[in-house]
Amino acid sequence: MRNIAMIVSYDGTNYSGFQSQPGCLTIQGELEKALFVLTGQHIRVNGSGRTDAGVHAKGQVINFRTDCGIPVERFALAINARLPGDIVVQSVYEAPQEFHARHDPKSKTYRYSILCSRFADVFRRKYELHHPTPLDFAAMAKGLEHLIGEHDFSSFASPKSTKSSHVRTIYECRLEVETLLPFEDTDAWRYPGKQRGRIHLYVKGNGFLYNMVRIIAATVILIGEGKLSPSDMARILVAKDRSQAAPTAAPHALSLWALDYGEVFGDKPETPDEA
Amino acid sequence: MRNIAMIVSYDGTNYSGFQSQPGCLTIQGELEKALFVLTGQHIRVNGSGRTDAGVHAKGQVINFRTDCGIPVERFALAINARLPGDIVVQSVYEAPQEFHARHDPKSKTYRYSILCSRFADVFRRKYELHHPTPLDFAAMAKGLEHLIGEHDFSSFASPKSTKSSHVRTIYECRLEVETLLPFEDTDAWRYPGKQRGRIHLYVKGNGFLYNMVRIIAATVILIGEGKLSPSDMARILVAKDRSQAAPTAAPHALSLWALDYGEVFGDKPETPDEA
Repeated sequence: MRNIAMIVSYDGTNYSGFQSQPGCLTIQGELEKALFVLTGQHIRVNGSGRTDAGVHAKGQVINFRTDCGIPVERFALAINARLPGDIVVQSVYEAPQEFHARHDPKSKTYRYSILCSRFADVFRRKYELHHPTPLDFAAMAKGLEHLIGEHDFSSFASPKSTKSSHVRTIYECRLEVETLLPFEDTDAWRYPGKQRGRIHLYVKGNGFLYNMVRIIAATVILIGEGKLSPSDMARILVAKDRSQAAPTAAPHALSLWALDYGEVFGDKPETPDEA
Repeated sequence: MRNIAMIVSYDGTNYSGFQSQPGCLTIQGELEKALFVLTGQHIRVNGSGRTDAGVHAKGQVINFRTDCGIPVERFALAINARLPGDIVVQSVYEAPQEFHARHDPKSKTYRYSILCSRFADVFRRKYELHHPTPLDFAAMAKGLEHLIGEHDFSSFASPKSTKSSHVRTIYECRLEVETLLPFEDTDAWRYPGKQRGRIHLYVKGNGFLYNMVRIIAATVILIGEGKLSPSDMARILVAKDRSQAAPTAAPHALSLWALDYGEVFGDKPETPDEA
C-alpha cells in the first residue's frame, strides 16, 4: 500500500470544521468523497489535527493509504478537479510507510489576522477580524513574548479540552504588521501610542490546546486596547485559570498556516504536471 | 437638499451588477434599501458607472440627494450597520450641489488580477483569475503600452456597446507584479522567458467601453502565453474589429479600483466617528 501525503489549503467559511461528522459538511468528508470519485476506493484520511468550524488552512497536511496507481505528479490536478473550489490540494508526496500526519509534526504554526481600520475590507472580511479602534501594536508584541517557551497553558485552553497535560512549548509568538494605515489629522490625538493597520499574529508550537490561539488572540487584543498591560500576559499564564484570559476570539480570522515534519519527505516537491 | 457622496467598496460575487434591475440582487438596490431603512426616504443613488455581474469595486463613488439630518461624520457607520457585509461604505462627503458621480470623473481606474500558479489560492479565488501555466510578464507589459493614448477602442468593445463613439483616452496601462512565485527545478526549462506569480493589470482612462478591460485582459494573456506578440496589440487596436481581440475574460477578477474627481471635495475626508 502506498502512503500518500498532501498539503491542503481550504477556506473553512462554509464547513463544520476539518473532522468528519455525520450530517455535516466537513473538509475531511469532502476530501474522502473526492478520493472515492477518483479511485473508486473508500479511503480514510488522517489530518495533522482538527480545525474548528469556520477556521481556514493554508497548509494543512493529510495522509492516507491507497493501492491506486495514480502517479504522484498527477494526483493534485486529478483530485482538485473533483474538489469544491474552496478546498485546493497544493502538493502531493509519496510518504514513507511510517509517516502519519497527526503523530509526526515537529511544529505547527497558526496565524490570526486582524484588520484594525475604521471599516472592514470587503475582500478579506471572511479571513480577518475587523477591529474598528486603533491598537497599541508594540504593547501587543511585548505581551506575546511572555508565551514563548514551555508553559502550562491552562489559562488559554477551553474548559472542553480533554488533554491530560496542558504543558506545551511555544517556539515563536510574534506580531507581524503587514500594512500600517494612516491616521487622519483629526484622529491621532485620541489614540496616543496606538496604530491602525493589518496585522497577523503567528504562533508556532509543538502542540496546541483547544481554542488556544483564539484565546491568546483575544487576550492580546485587550493588551492592544490598553485594558491589559503586556506583563498581564505573564500573570495570566501563571494563574493557570481560564477565567483570567479573554473570551475566545472569532474563528474566521484563524488559519492553520504551516506544519513542519523535518526531513521526512526529503526535498522533493511534486513535479509539475502542466504540459 | 444636501448632496451626499460616498466611496463604496463591494464584493460583487453574489450580485447581478451595480445597477438596479427588477427581481435581481444589485449593489444599487442594497444601497437604496439601506438608505430607506436609515432615513425613511426613497432615495435614488447615482453611481459613477455600472459594474457588471460578478465585478467588484474597491472605490466606487455614488451620490444622492437627501434632506435627512444625519451628520456626515456619522453617516458611514450608520449606513454600514444596515448594509450586508459584502458592501462597505468607506467614506462620506458633503458634495457641492453640482456634483454628479457619473458625469464628473476625470478618470477611472480598473484593476484585473491574475494568479499565475499551479493551483488556485483558496482565499483569493473569487477576486483573481487562476492561470495554471507561466506567462511572459515582460511581453505582457510591452503589449499594454500600445494602448496608452487616445484611440478608437472598437476592437476592445463588446458588440453590445451602444456608445456612438469608441474613442477613449487611456492615461495608464500597466502590469504590476505583486509577488513572483519560484519555479521548481524540474520546471523552468519548459517555459523560457516565462514567470509565475500574482499580477495586476491597472487601466486608467477617461472612460471605458462595455467589457473593455476584460477584453484587454484576455488579449494580454494571449501575449503572455506567446500566442500573440506585444506588437499584435497595436495591430488589433488599428483593426477596429472586435473579432481580432481575444474573447472577454471572466468578470470575477475585475475591480473598479478608483475614481478621480479632482478637487471637487477639497481635501476634507470624513472625520472618524469612534469615541
